Amino acid sequence: MLIVGGTASNSIDERLAAILGAKLAKLEKKDFPDGEFKIRIGTDVKGQDVVIVQSLYNPQETHLLELLFAIDDIKGLGAARVIAVVPYLAYARQNKRFLEGEGISIETVVKLLNAVGTDALVTVRPHKSEPLSGFKGRMAIVEPVRSMAKAIKTKCADPFILSPDKGGTEFAEAVAKSLGCGHASLEKERDYGTGELTIKSLIDGGFRGKDIVIVDDMISGGGTIAASARFSLDNGAKSVGAAAVHMLMLDGAYQRINESRVAWLIGMNTIPYRNAELVDVSEDIAEAIRGLLAST
Amino acid sequence: MLIVGGTASNSIDERLAAILGAKLAKLEKKDFPDGEFKIRIGTDVKGQDVVIVQSLYNPQETHLLELLFAIDDIKGLGAARVIAVVPYLAYARQNKRFLEGEGISIETVVKLLNAVGTDALVTVRPHKSEPLSGFKGRMAIVEPVRSMAKAIKTKCADPFILSPDKGGTEFAEAVAKSLGCGHASLEKERDYGTGELTIKSLIDGGFRGKDIVIVDDMISGGGTIAASARFSLDNGAKSVGAAAVHMLMLDGAYQRINESRVAWLIGMNTIPYRNAELVDVSEDIAEAIRGLLAST
Repeated sequence: MLIVGGTASNSIDERLAAILGAKLAKLEKKDFPDGEFKIRIGTDVKGQDVVIVQSLYNPQETHLLELLFAIDDIKGLGAARVIAVVPYLAYARQNKRFLEGEGISIETVVKLLNAVGTDALVTVRPHKSEPLSGFKGRMAIVEPVRSMAKAIKTKCADPFILSPDKGGTEFAEAVAKSLGCGHASLEKERDYGTGELTIKSLIDGGFRGKDIVIVDDMISGGGTIAASARFSLDNGAKSVGAAAVHMLMLDGAYQRINESRVAWLIGMNTIPYRNAELVDVSEDIAEAIRGLLAST
Repeated sequence: MLIVGGTASNSIDERLAAILGAKLAKLEKKDFPDGEFKIRIGTDVKGQDVVIVQSLYNPQETHLLELLFAIDDIKGLGAARVIAVVPYLAYARQNKRFLEGEGISIETVVKLLNAVGTDALVTVRPHKSEPLSGFKGRMAIVEPVRSMAKAIKTKCADPFILSPDKGGTEFAEAVAKSLGCGHASLEKERDYGTGELTIKSLIDGGFRGKDIVIVDDMISGGGTIAASARFSLDNGAKSVGAAAVHMLMLDGAYQRINESRVAWLIGMNTIPYRNAELVDVSEDIAEAIRGLLAST
């Protein structure tokens, strides 16, 4: 097996190579002055199972095209199988026509991955997994529950897990189960005029004296985390921490969360981010790769 | 027929709609703060032949992904056929493995166009057309010979066409034929250490007293045009003008050409460029579209 690290591998390629005892090569990229680029694989891939690692954070289009060029190249050079490891899958939130006539971006991305002959896809907790059903190869969705639970344990001895909305409940519940602790969900309502969030319902048992850990699949603007933290503290929580998988952390997100008196913040290394401790998802991904290879 | 103008249509969409008497719609694009975007078609496309116009100049990856999202969307919304008009096709120069292990970018781009169900492709004089052979739909390569000849005629009463290297000879010859004037080619040699160009061979009949018009398929750094102009003037040419299809015009290209005493410079509107007169290719493209529709 050969691991190829793309330009947006965020060191997961190196860790996978170490965990799986595989050879590591870096995808070579040359930028041209007209804005085009070309890629090159400097290692023999003939007959091998090749794992290409490329996360699709900003700039998403560039990272995606690099990945597609690389997979097509690796296949063309005679690799046996190509497994695309995409720690953060871009465009996953555009999974339906919210307005008439809109493109369903994630479905297009899946078609492009099919077009270059991607044999298998490993991705970490996409926003929704149904839109990936068009993928023709084998697929493994990594749910980094244990890594997340382990990291939370180092921050908080007696956590109570809070899911800030119904969408993320499944993951938060799994984390709570892994920790053997309590869990609850909030209901949020967004005013689409002002963008303001309102927390809708209280929780059985209340927050009083609890060390609340807000768990979500991603943090974009940070407003959801901040509002959930404030609500928890206003209702008597002893402390609030926050843990999320994909740290998009848009402009202002850190400040927003910080001002809401969240005591600690952890994310995962699917997206590079400097202002929080990032939990490594490589073990979870390695396990998924082993599973894919064993079952074929 | 419906014409849809992409964000990189450079007004060719509007001209095509006027020439072909077709309805025009603009591709709607919404940028998200995380760097993703979504597209929308605001017009009913069901059962229609839809022409989407999107040139692939810089930023190429963004323009390409917009095009792929748009085609997939238009097909998904029930269009009869989608004709992609790509005035400038990016990545066409990476048409083989120049170094072992390199990706063949243009072949990947063609696969992506196939993947979203592009029924027909119209593009203006790509660097080479063989690498497009993997395209599964119908294809029309526009050679804007007459438009170019007509524009040259307005600049120069008695032109002598010069092709700066053997690669562009075919197009330059066709332009010369259309003008009914003489034609010759230079042989250039590039020192890959210094990047310097040397003109290798003289031309039958010489340059003395001739109004030389250098014709090329694209201008990138401008060095080829500048060196050919200097060579022509040093060998007695009366004047030198330059005409090219795709005006990449990288940093310094204008200055380089200007310093070589080129009297005038024209390009075509496949790529937006402010410092030269741009000839409109829309008539040539409209003709190609008519041809595609008539023959199916």
